[in-house]
Amino acid sequence: MNIQEYIASYAKEVEGELQELFPRLWDIPDVLRQSAQYSIDAGGKRLRPILVLAAAEALGGRKEAAMPVACAIEMVHTYSLIHDDLPAMDNDDYRRGKLTNHKVYGEAMAILAGDALLTQAFYSASQARRHGVPAEQVLNIVEELAEYSGARGMVGGQVADMKGEQGITELSGLEYIHQHKTSDLIMFSLRAGGRVAGADDKQLEALTDFGRSIGLAFQIQDDILDVTGTQEKLGKAVGSDEKQHKVTYPFFIGMEESERRVAQLTDEAKTAIAGGVLPKPQRLLELADYLMKRDR
Amino acid sequence: MNIQEYIASYAKEVEGELQELFPRLWDIPDVLRQSAQYSIDAGGKRLRPILVLAAAEALGGRKEAAMPVACAIEMVHTYSLIHDDLPAMDNDDYRRGKLTNHKVYGEAMAILAGDALLTQAFYSASQARRHGVPAEQVLNIVEELAEYSGARGMVGGQVADMKGEQGITELSGLEYIHQHKTSDLIMFSLRAGGRVAGADDKQLEALTDFGRSIGLAFQIQDDILDVTGTQEKLGKAVGSDEKQHKVTYPFFIGMEESERRVAQLTDEAKTAIAGGVLPKPQRLLELADYLMKRDR
Repeated sequence: MNIQEYIASYAKEVEGELQELFPRLWDIPDVLRQSAQYSIDAGGKRLRPILVLAAAEALGGRKEAAMPVACAIEMVHTYSLIHDDLPAMDNDDYRRGKLTNHKVYGEAMAILAGDALLTQAFYSASQARRHGVPAEQVLNIVEELAEYSGARGMVGGQVADMKGEQGITELSGLEYIHQHKTSDLIMFSLRAGGRVAGADDKQLEALTDFGRSIGLAFQIQDDILDVTGTQEKLGKAVGSDEKQHKVTYPFFIGMEESERRVAQLTDEAKTAIAGGVLPKPQRLLELADYLMKRDR
Repeated sequence: MNIQEYIASYAKEVEGELQELFPRLWDIPDVLRQSAQYSIDAGGKRLRPILVLAAAEALGGRKEAAMPVACAIEMVHTYSLIHDDLPAMDNDDYRRGKLTNHKVYGEAMAILAGDALLTQAFYSASQARRHGVPAEQVLNIVEELAEYSGARGMVGGQVADMKGEQGITELSGLEYIHQHKTSDLIMFSLRAGGRVAGADDKQLEALTDFGRSIGLAFQIQDDILDVTGTQEKLGKAVGSDEKQHKVTYPFFIGMEESERRVAQLTDEAKTAIAGGVLPKPQRLLELADYLMKRDR
């Protein structure tokens, strides 16, 4: 399998698992099930869950044991998009070419579907223990999921982004937003995949460094694509960030320097996990290159 | 201590713990910290955390070990109120006589503060292991927190309530809402307190039955108070449920029968934990009576 095939195949497996978001036996209102499933099905690259699986594999771990955590991170990512799209937040009607959750199910249901997905993510993560992951390790994952996706992580980044719309004047402000809004979940994905497979401290550190670098590269690349991309490819209006007066990397340091930084961060990411610290780093190395070269 | 003093004293301890909602070391946006803390500080009776502590004590467990879970459930309760009050949901300007979160911090921040509180609840619950609770048991608590507060529990109840505003025609519909919107978190509180103290299956079942009965009694009592109470006591407009065309227990079965059911459920609750299944049930028995007699 080349890396494109690897990504496609793993994305499909994750999507298969997510077909049953809430256990079938659970008696829950139909419309809630539909609303949550709608946004899960409207998903994109499934990057975060793929990183969980690839990190576990890089340590010789089993994909099955990593799958509950992979699904958990996709639920957190999806809930964050539903809430971000709300009229009180970014007020977006479309995402990835499909109507946003609140345009289909209404605002109240979109809020509640997001709440249900966030909550279910912790249920899903805790299921890792049914696949042989020790309870202590599963609790480490639960604790970090809360840290990286909560006030100190993604939610904090979203708050800073919201405030930032009133004007960020320094690159460090933009970096805070990117770090927490995007990189934190990516770092979590790599650490959690490593934990599932019993990573030691040195390996966790390598995965964290890798995640931090590709996370930031990913976001700079997003900023670049937002300036240069086509609406068709991205599924949203080109230049929409600038339109909403959001500042971007190219705005601060120019397009050429932005591209140079993506390349540099990708190199740093690869260096962090090379040199034998992980037994099988190949797929992670390929994923880093793939992300740098993506055009959507 | 009589039961009023017990409640006041434990509420104060919980509030003390919640003074530092997010660890001081965490670098998070000030406004997020303030917004979340505002709603935590505006709290009411602290019933759910007190039930966690009392259940642990009924089994001879330590209050300190139960405190992280007690705080977690108060965070979940508080987030649910913030989101319920949003314009897209119940659109309330006041709660307990204070402005609702979105009236002070805006809708976007209220959504994000709720998200942060829900996420932090899982962080807090997982801290029980730092107080000697075995990891397997803490994971059971985390898993149940997700079940009882998510799609199958409180969020599901909220969805049913929302749909119910378009007209519930049977008592069973109302019972589904009450069960999940209110009783589920109360049942969780008792089970989790029991788990912290190492409850066996029979004891967990007794606590669950107790929780189910006082949870339903609590909600019927709430419906009764909403009809008979005074605005001053409840901190919200009297008859506000009826005004919004929400159906209540008195609406279906009359006031007298509603009162009879509260008394009957309270008896059933007490019977469930009497008879020696719990070593020290006294405070729980007193709490059941206290709740039945409350006037706010």
